[in-house]
Amino acid sequence: MPPSTAAAGSVGSVETRYLDLPGPVRLDCGRELHQVRVAYETYGILSPDRDNVILVCHALSGDAHAAGFAKNPPETGTRDGFAAESRDGAAGKGLGWWDGMIGPGKAFDTDRFFVVSTNILGGCRGTTGPSSTDPATGRAYGSDFPVITVADMVRTQRAFLDELGISRLAAVAGGSLGGMQAQEWAVLFPDQVDAIVVIASTHALHPQGVAWNAIARDAIMRDPAWQGGHYHGTGRAPDDGMGVARMVGHITYLSAPALGDRFGRRLQFADDIRYTISEPEFEVESYLRHQADSFVKRFDANTYLYTSRALSYFDLAREHGDGSLVRALAGVSARTLLIAFSSDWLYAPSASIEIEQALRELGKPVEFHLIEAPYGHDCFLLEEARQTPIIQQFLGDPEMKRNQ
Amino acid sequence: MPPSTAAAGSVGSVETRYLDLPGPVRLDCGRELHQVRVAYETYGILSPDRDNVILVCHALSGDAHAAGFAKNPPETGTRDGFAAESRDGAAGKGLGWWDGMIGPGKAFDTDRFFVVSTNILGGCRGTTGPSSTDPATGRAYGSDFPVITVADMVRTQRAFLDELGISRLAAVAGGSLGGMQAQEWAVLFPDQVDAIVVIASTHALHPQGVAWNAIARDAIMRDPAWQGGHYHGTGRAPDDGMGVARMVGHITYLSAPALGDRFGRRLQFADDIRYTISEPEFEVESYLRHQADSFVKRFDANTYLYTSRALSYFDLAREHGDGSLVRALAGVSARTLLIAFSSDWLYAPSASIEIEQALRELGKPVEFHLIEAPYGHDCFLLEEARQTPIIQQFLGDPEMKRNQ
Repeated sequence: MPPSTAAAGSVGSVETRYLDLPGPVRLDCGRELHQVRVAYETYGILSPDRDNVILVCHALSGDAHAAGFAKNPPETGTRDGFAAESRDGAAGKGLGWWDGMIGPGKAFDTDRFFVVSTNILGGCRGTTGPSSTDPATGRAYGSDFPVITVADMVRTQRAFLDELGISRLAAVAGGSLGGMQAQEWAVLFPDQVDAIVVIASTHALHPQGVAWNAIARDAIMRDPAWQGGHYHGTGRAPDDGMGVARMVGHITYLSAPALGDRFGRRLQFADDIRYTISEPEFEVESYLRHQADSFVKRFDANTYLYTSRALSYFDLAREHGDGSLVRALAGVSARTLLIAFSSDWLYAPSASIEIEQALRELGKPVEFHLIEAPYGHDCFLLEEARQTPIIQQFLGDPEMKRNQ
Repeated sequence: MPPSTAAAGSVGSVETRYLDLPGPVRLDCGRELHQVRVAYETYGILSPDRDNVILVCHALSGDAHAAGFAKNPPETGTRDGFAAESRDGAAGKGLGWWDGMIGPGKAFDTDRFFVVSTNILGGCRGTTGPSSTDPATGRAYGSDFPVITVADMVRTQRAFLDELGISRLAAVAGGSLGGMQAQEWAVLFPDQVDAIVVIASTHALHPQGVAWNAIARDAIMRDPAWQGGHYHGTGRAPDDGMGVARMVGHITYLSAPALGDRFGRRLQFADDIRYTISEPEFEVESYLRHQADSFVKRFDANTYLYTSRALSYFDLAREHGDGSLVRALAGVSARTLLIAFSSDWLYAPSASIEIEQALRELGKPVEFHLIEAPYGHDCFLLEEARQTPIIQQFLGDPEMKRNQ
């Protein structure tokens, strides 16, 4: 473990804040969203020149609470009984989802950088999304919420940062969907981003990933409690479908060997099988149900649908390059750091290599690191110690330079 | 393509027949099933010595109609409107699910062998299963059907073959769950099986496979139309949940590269995305929905649950070896042929290698063939030309010997 990590500290107790954008957000679909609110947290101190800002972008089920201990639970946005009662893993203790990466002496060093984290557009943790009240009707948008893209999320972040008086970003960083946002930033606003850190991500989800996402969405929409997307305020929600969606997602985030190491074929009751269809028999079955149950308590099904759709649509070559990734990236001026994990079969290293090759072909500065690690896509949340020195070096951490 | 395959013919038009077992079937769970009916087909001619019988065993969604053209659609067993209207792929044209492998001059050569195929216990295509009438109540069993195992399926086949006057099998063959049945035969009835052909199978599904099956079952059971398993006769069935289950299954049967080659990220409407949550946008999304829709028309959800449970339970080492695969296989006297496919990540080649190593350690005759092919688990239904010479050689086909 590098000395800088050993010396790493916490950003401490943090409060999620909310900012209402003054103007509407124009969307790719042609519609406009009015009265957009953004939930956000910041860590560290903004430099007088405002040149030390890092925007971190979360993945499908994340939120603005990226680091530190939550002082206040984020607004859930679902206004009829969904509570942020429990969160998975470290987050269950109130820790931010990337707490291991953000803080004094950490990968995103808050002694140097002013780190900003927002809940994405379409989210259910304080930023305007399908569970928010539609100002035109006074009711929750539900499935009347416009279909959004990763570019829409990024434009919302841009408008939000304008309000904070931040025009330039030292870096945009994120894993998975967060890495898509970082790439989109570099393409949409090439003059405003110095560097991007793209972890366990892709320039376009492969067809099997598109399929998994479609199945997860179908599981939600086939639940009668979804009610065509207008379940908010009815006292019912598509928890059963969401549970299935989460289970599908969860297995795709892990590698088969990691599942094998953790659970094997161990039975719940070690003596023997109990001949039951409806009850879990294997530990892995019980674990999946627990994952489903805890997720539906903290997440809104429509946000899942909209976010899943956005990340399936995301396709730099189609959106910006007329089918060519090289053309799409031609205008990028940010330095690019790509990190992928050997066992990640959902966001496979090959996609990062394609981005690297396109950038090299264009003569742009790019670094690609493949980390051999067994936990699948979830590595980007777990393998903090191994990502840290790579990111510190890329960001030119003075501490790192002293220790080299 | 080997000459023997080029000369291969069809078994022609075939009728599914039904046989009622005279006595009850004792099950692993301790219960007995009474008035068990078995749906079956036969191809070829039984030799006077009754020594040329091959039993072929189907996988999760198969039935007794393994070869030739269906003269009559098999009874669905679901007595309230489920019709065997359409079947996937070749079967849609009335062809048996393994027609490419069974027939004159084919892998299972009906000029030499009398091939018997039955619908498994718990099935919905003519053999007694959860959609059959419970003689004790006069209503469909539904979820009162006893939980069954692969061994129960094999004991039912044993009782059925007794009625046909067949005591000895030249071979038992099958892919996937069918391969599990073949292994179980060799362990349960070592003196009655000369050879087993185990294709794309395993001695125990790995934990990720257990997880996929649990998710598929949960999707069915969370559908309110499942009604605790007693939907038969209500006019409603858990088609939505079954559709999700089938989509999950379908993606696990294919390899990611095969999905990529076939669909890529092609949109339904080539000009651009349409910004829709509920409609399919990508061709692969549309394909999945079609697979779901056609499957629910021909298959019973409870049979899916029971069969999925049986194949998840299957574990030779636990059942017969006190945790040791070598001990479990110690009594086997059948020659064993194992075939696996390089791209099959659900029934990975490593499991076949474990079986091979255990049999070698025991000094038993075993052959393992790894076929490099891109289509994932479905290879066992698709790669007929490459399996054929391996199987013919293993079964000592005279035609093959002439051509070598």
